[in-house]
Amino acid sequence: MSRYLDPPLHDVRDVVTRALAEDLTPLGDLSATLLPSYASASATFVARDAGIVAGAACALEVFRQVDETLEVTWIQPDGSLIPGMTPLGSVSGSLESILIAERTALNFLMYLSGIATNTGRYVDAATGPAKVWDTRKTTPGLRSLEKAAVRAGGARNHRGNLSDWIMLKDNHLMGMSITEGVALARDRWPGRTIHVEADRLEQALEATAAGADAVLLDNMTPEELRVAVAKVSEAVGAGRRPLLEASGGIDLTTIDAVSHTGVDMISTSKLSFGAPTLDIGLDIQSRAGA
Amino acid sequence: MSRYLDPPLHDVRDVVTRALAEDLTPLGDLSATLLPSYASASATFVARDAGIVAGAACALEVFRQVDETLEVTWIQPDGSLIPGMTPLGSVSGSLESILIAERTALNFLMYLSGIATNTGRYVDAATGPAKVWDTRKTTPGLRSLEKAAVRAGGARNHRGNLSDWIMLKDNHLMGMSITEGVALARDRWPGRTIHVEADRLEQALEATAAGADAVLLDNMTPEELRVAVAKVSEAVGAGRRPLLEASGGIDLTTIDAVSHTGVDMISTSKLSFGAPTLDIGLDIQSRAGA
Amino acid sequence: MSRYLDPPLHDVRDVVTRALAEDLTPLGDLSATLLPSYASASATFVARDAGIVAGAACALEVFRQVDETLEVTWIQPDGSLIPGMTPLGSVSGSLESILIAERTALNFLMYLSGIATNTGRYVDAATGPAKVWDTRKTTPGLRSLEKAAVRAGGARNHRGNLSDWIMLKDNHLMGMSITEGVALARDRWPGRTIHVEADRLEQALEATAAGADAVLLDNMTPEELRVAVAKVSEAVGAGRRPLLEASGGIDLTTIDAVSHTGVDMISTSKLSFGAPTLDIGLDIQSRAGA
Amino acid sequence: MSRYLDPPLHDVRDVVTRALAEDLTPLGDLSATLLPSYASASATFVARDAGIVAGAACALEVFRQVDETLEVTWIQPDGSLIPGMTPLGSVSGSLESILIAERTALNFLMYLSGIATNTGRYVDAATGPAKVWDTRKTTPGLRSLEKAAVRAGGARNHRGNLSDWIMLKDNHLMGMSITEGVALARDRWPGRTIHVEADRLEQALEATAAGADAVLLDNMTPEELRVAVAKVSEAVGAGRRPLLEASGGIDLTTIDAVSHTGVDMISTSKLSFGAPTLDIGLDIQSRAGA
Amino acid sequence: MSRYLDPPLHDVRDVVTRALAEDLTPLGDLSATLLPSYASASATFVARDAGIVAGAACALEVFRQVDETLEVTWIQPDGSLIPGMTPLGSVSGSLESILIAERTALNFLMYLSGIATNTGRYVDAATGPAKVWDTRKTTPGLRSLEKAAVRAGGARNHRGNLSDWIMLKDNHLMGMSITEGVALARDRWPGRTIHVEADRLEQALEATAAGADAVLLDNMTPEELRVAVAKVSEAVGAGRRPLLEASGGIDLTTIDAVSHTGVDMISTSKLSFGAPTLDIGLDIQSRAGA
Amino acid sequence: MSRYLDPPLHDVRDVVTRALAEDLTPLGDLSATLLPSYASASATFVARDAGIVAGAACALEVFRQVDETLEVTWIQPDGSLIPGMTPLGSVSGSLESILIAERTALNFLMYLSGIATNTGRYVDAATGPAKVWDTRKTTPGLRSLEKAAVRAGGARNHRGNLSDWIMLKDNHLMGMSITEGVALARDRWPGRTIHVEADRLEQALEATAAGADAVLLDNMTPEELRVAVAKVSEAVGAGRRPLLEASGGIDLTTIDAVSHTGVDMISTSKLSFGAPTLDIGLDIQSRAGA
Repeated sequence: MSRYLDPPLHDVRDVVTRALAEDLTPLGDLSATLLPSYASASATFVARDAGIVAGAACALEVFRQVDETLEVTWIQPDGSLIPGMTPLGSVSGSLESILIAERTALNFLMYLSGIATNTGRYVDAATGPAKVWDTRKTTPGLRSLEKAAVRAGGARNHRGNLSDWIMLKDNHLMGMSITEGVALARDRWPGRTIHVEADRLEQALEATAAGADAVLLDNMTPEELRVAVAKVSEAVGAGRRPLLEASGGIDLTTIDAVSHTGVDMISTSKLSFGAPTLDIGLDIQSRAGA
Repeated sequence: MSRYLDPPLHDVRDVVTRALAEDLTPLGDLSATLLPSYASASATFVARDAGIVAGAACALEVFRQVDETLEVTWIQPDGSLIPGMTPLGSVSGSLESILIAERTALNFLMYLSGIATNTGRYVDAATGPAKVWDTRKTTPGLRSLEKAAVRAGGARNHRGNLSDWIMLKDNHLMGMSITEGVALARDRWPGRTIHVEADRLEQALEATAAGADAVLLDNMTPEELRVAVAKVSEAVGAGRRPLLEASGGIDLTTIDAVSHTGVDMISTSKLSFGAPTLDIGLDIQSRAGA
Repeated sequence: MSRYLDPPLHDVRDVVTRALAEDLTPLGDLSATLLPSYASASATFVARDAGIVAGAACALEVFRQVDETLEVTWIQPDGSLIPGMTPLGSVSGSLESILIAERTALNFLMYLSGIATNTGRYVDAATGPAKVWDTRKTTPGLRSLEKAAVRAGGARNHRGNLSDWIMLKDNHLMGMSITEGVALARDRWPGRTIHVEADRLEQALEATAAGADAVLLDNMTPEELRVAVAKVSEAVGAGRRPLLEASGGIDLTTIDAVSHTGVDMISTSKLSFGAPTLDIGLDIQSRAGA
Repeated sequence: MSRYLDPPLHDVRDVVTRALAEDLTPLGDLSATLLPSYASASATFVARDAGIVAGAACALEVFRQVDETLEVTWIQPDGSLIPGMTPLGSVSGSLESILIAERTALNFLMYLSGIATNTGRYVDAATGPAKVWDTRKTTPGLRSLEKAAVRAGGARNHRGNLSDWIMLKDNHLMGMSITEGVALARDRWPGRTIHVEADRLEQALEATAAGADAVLLDNMTPEELRVAVAKVSEAVGAGRRPLLEASGGIDLTTIDAVSHTGVDMISTSKLSFGAPTLDIGLDIQSRAGA
Repeated sequence: MSRYLDPPLHDVRDVVTRALAEDLTPLGDLSATLLPSYASASATFVARDAGIVAGAACALEVFRQVDETLEVTWIQPDGSLIPGMTPLGSVSGSLESILIAERTALNFLMYLSGIATNTGRYVDAATGPAKVWDTRKTTPGLRSLEKAAVRAGGARNHRGNLSDWIMLKDNHLMGMSITEGVALARDRWPGRTIHVEADRLEQALEATAAGADAVLLDNMTPEELRVAVAKVSEAVGAGRRPLLEASGGIDLTTIDAVSHTGVDMISTSKLSFGAPTLDIGLDIQSRAGA
Repeated sequence: MSRYLDPPLHDVRDVVTRALAEDLTPLGDLSATLLPSYASASATFVARDAGIVAGAACALEVFRQVDETLEVTWIQPDGSLIPGMTPLGSVSGSLESILIAERTALNFLMYLSGIATNTGRYVDAATGPAKVWDTRKTTPGLRSLEKAAVRAGGARNHRGNLSDWIMLKDNHLMGMSITEGVALARDRWPGRTIHVEADRLEQALEATAAGADAVLLDNMTPEELRVAVAKVSEAVGAGRRPLLEASGGIDLTTIDAVSHTGVDMISTSKLSFGAPTLDIGLDIQSRAGA
């Protein structure tokens, strides 16, 4: 494995710091202060349901920031497909520290594994050759974590932000044709992917002729997509076909049909935005006092 | 109306700053740079589906931070119950600025209105006298926004964080009885709500006798809850009954029965954690160049 | 011992970073640059006067941030009651690093031990059963450290901030009676301590009847307090009496009398706000060059 | 008047943001949410005791950050010497906003006016020609505010931090004479004030001969100071005498004698560190509902 | 004009805040405190030398953050080509505020206009069809400002960061051929520009065959470049040729020859990294007291 | 060696965090994700050209923040004068981590060694007794790093910021003579260096008579400087001469003549502002897979 599934480290550090601050301000964990400081414990993260793991880097960072002396062993790295009641990893050391960190660590794991698991459902449902893509519809401030969880779930990441590549929609073309828009974009931002949104086949063909790198086929039926793929392929002949993306109205019941239409990518915000969480708990197995 | 439904202002400012930075780093909105700066537009936020609005403060702050000259008119404040295809508010001014702000503003509205709408489902389903409560299972770093959306949906907020009140679970009682734990908590943290988690009726009665302010009745059936309510009420006689909270295994099919058991509160993370988003779009109605 | 006396770790880290930045910007410690880097030393923190120690976590964090290779041994944890000329702990390693850290570490110790020591004077003076409580009158941005020092001094913490519990003062009751205010608060924020400020006995009795959790008896004489305690007790009968807090005009000469009036809590900002510092110095005992 | 008494604006903004966050996290001001949002009020800051005002910039920034529509009129700028029961300024607008801002604004005013007032006592007590100087013993993270309050109280600021000028103490002179130390400092950091701490007259004379800009005469009696001033003056002859600073053991009973010894400066941390606060309240004079 | 030449607004705000803090910590502008606060002035920014303007957004933000009441009129927007002794804009209002802001505003203008001006030299020198590209060699923490200044100077921006697109160098291909590397990149990150570094013609041809979007021809002579362009063009036939980039050893004496070789892009860090500043001053034309 | 050449540690940490964030947001290093995580390598930093090293603390911090398990050995500390093709230090460990850190580490080294090297040129060119001084013309937000690099290059630091000492220019003297200005400054800010800018000899003499600590002789020819030095020296007689600084129009062709005029300091922004970078590369010598 590589770091392909990891979120950027500085984001992990930063969001964990903020998450702990929001849970402990201004007086700390009042309940934990009732414990003697010598109390220790060992505990295991257990996924109650089947799913795909994501968020381990965040959980580990939570423990590191709360108490560097805690010992954490992680068994199921991000991207692991697990049945229900699977131990994911364990932590041992100061009971106080474990209780302080527990909820925040679990929140990261449940939230991000929920996205990975939900993404996996879409990836599995799309049995055709098309790949599954996420979108920029993400929980504000947490995009890099959500995009990593989407990768853990087996899908791919659409552009990371507005600065990543050019995406020409209707509203960007004030008095310009698609052809002029692509040319202007190519001139100002050479080397970037130029993506054009097409509501109709004509637009897709114009974008293709203009040399767009990718074309979003918006809200088309599988049949319309099939036609669009054929026409675009015909138009480029031996040349390179732009990446064709189906978007709009994708859900678990429609994705399979779309995946067999010949498009390259199917994008949907449903992979991650509003994805249900995965139920994960922390079982404290043993405790010891002085 | 009051500010009861508002998230703290500093959190709104801070999270909007981070959300814009994540969408615009490092080169800004490449696509928007293709527009002439004199282009202007007016646009309307429209909820595609029925639901409850939340997140207006965040959306407005997005526009304020992107371009202070944009004019925003907001019609549906947080907490508004709306049918599908309802205009929520509108914005007019620089087209570039509107496009830069669009996705981030929509992400806040969809995410938080999704929580409010989902919360409303639980509140409506619970037709008995018990109130609905959220939990500390929240998306890391965004708790204050999610708790405000829960209020907009008509439910109440459980403690805000570990520093808010005392919650005694099994693991906090190392060699102490519940009675001793409540006494220690009362001594160290006078004036705080002391909440005790009870898996069994005996624990609930001990907590009541110990003077706990609230007792969490964990994973009990409606019948068990009814018995617990009766026994605790009997135990306190003319005195004040602790707040009784039902928790565990609550969903839309079970909440109504629980709400009629005599408990005061029903808590569930399902109101907000992993709630589906509400579909909201920005319709750009008119555009003008020089 | 537990972490009961500790400030939240993230606050310690954050305020130490800021304190070092303010002392070293923009060119570092000019004087320390005259030393050879091989110079080393060992030094001991000594409290010149008797008092109660607080702030050790901050002092240790200062050394950790300045130079992780410094070795620090701490003898007197927060809450220790010490006579004058007591060694608190010692540090050894790079002389440059020790000199860079010295003033900032001492400032934390003198400031926070001053609060703990001053708090101890009030706690000792109150020989009756009432406990001593702090307030929200704190040095801006440093509340969590000051509240921890108050605990080290033997007193208790009133609410941590405006988000902690409900405190109904005259100004919050626009056209509402106390009874209505308590009911509204209970409805909107179930599970929170509801505290009512009473200038007159009638208000205290109304708050009690309304089910307030705590009543602040404002600016009453010991005799008035005694009457109020009796009347409130009489009103509740066998039920639970709200926590009764005496506030206003408390100082070292009056606190003892108040502590014997039957109130539960005596609150005063004088524990911490404007508390004199405790004189602590760093004695450098030995130095060595190459 | 000039900005001579103002703290740096960015520090004011930053510390106010942090102070509000610590008072409002994570759910805002629970009590204020009980008010109708149309309620408005006007209120006046009144100093209960005589003193010197400081902290107005912070109080105004608190209101600005809480609610930009509040109208604030400030009458007594920093540095104003006021009798007891003096109105300092007033605020009008949303009652909710005023209540949310109240405590934080008052904390700044009480804390900083306390320092200015206390400084004024030392300045008044020192009737001789020597000026009064503060030190680097300050509350961590708030030095620039405290130094501004010291100026408001009529005293002067010693160096702002370790980066400001060179201060040679015993511990900085590893195997170097004072003469060598001054020369090294002058070579490495030309243009900086070079200050030498002298415990004995001989050191003061060596520092003078070495060309130090200032000499700290540590823990000397008024008589010893008088001798030191005479000897140093004799040594420099027609040349410029270094600034002579008396430090150590200064309090309100000793400062006057020291101020007549011929030294230029008297430094003491007692001006600000652990200074008592000035009692200031906010009187809400009128309130109006719809 | 559009916002094409603007740096992201949040970066401007953030870096200006830091720049002012570094110039004013901890006591503010000591010299400016000698001025009466009623002193006002008007002043003009004048470029002493010919060049291209950049950094106006930063300069304006400096004045806004120092004093919102200053009036600033800006005449020469970023990208303006100006002769020496050209007025760029003017500011009027409080003299103190102008002096506090002066150096920081000028530093931004001199630094960023220096980059734009230097970039303009390269753009002018390259008279062939190839466009000029910057690199990721930028001053740490200021990349978005430098990239905007490069655009103001008439060149284009290479990828903004490591997250922008794929760039395969020798070191990324552990046991993989270029063909395999491009395929892996395409699979994991569909929709991204895939750029391959080629030291030799064979590599360029392999990258082309593998479907790379861009090929960096490293350290080749104009003659070698010409051959590479021909061979790659021949290989793609009617298909789309990858973007061809010449890099390595580019300076003002060599860039013209390279620009005529048929490559699309010429990249060099010399546009911005270590670019000389443009001499700009602030002439204070009139001052007025009370 | 001492820490004399080091930038403040908190600035190093902070700027490295920001530099890594700008290079890795929002998805991390896409190219590095193609590597297997077990790949390791060792690599050496090599300065391609002769120069003076600066920035090692930053480079090391980059590696520490990216991956604490990387092993770094540094041979050439800041201030080392090196011929071309000199190894500066080496790093070994995870290849992915090395590639992620490479550009940021190199950017710090090239930028800061460029300043040190360029400073060295001016220091070497000035063969007279005068020392070379930098200015406050620095890249915004990076002043402390640039000032440390200037020290590494053998020059001295002028004041660090506006808060460091008093610098009286024409514009600060509204209706005041230089004599009055110096007196006011001395009164308000005792113990600070008071520096006066003089365009003409008369001003220099007035500043000297007024007791200024330093006089800036602005834009004078070597002959005028010589005269000014003589006249000022004559004026002070046996007393201490203020530090005399030559400024304006200094470059590599004029600095030597100025250095022999008797002035103490020669200041120029050319040491650092817009200094060319030093060419440094990272040679990856060996790589290993599993």
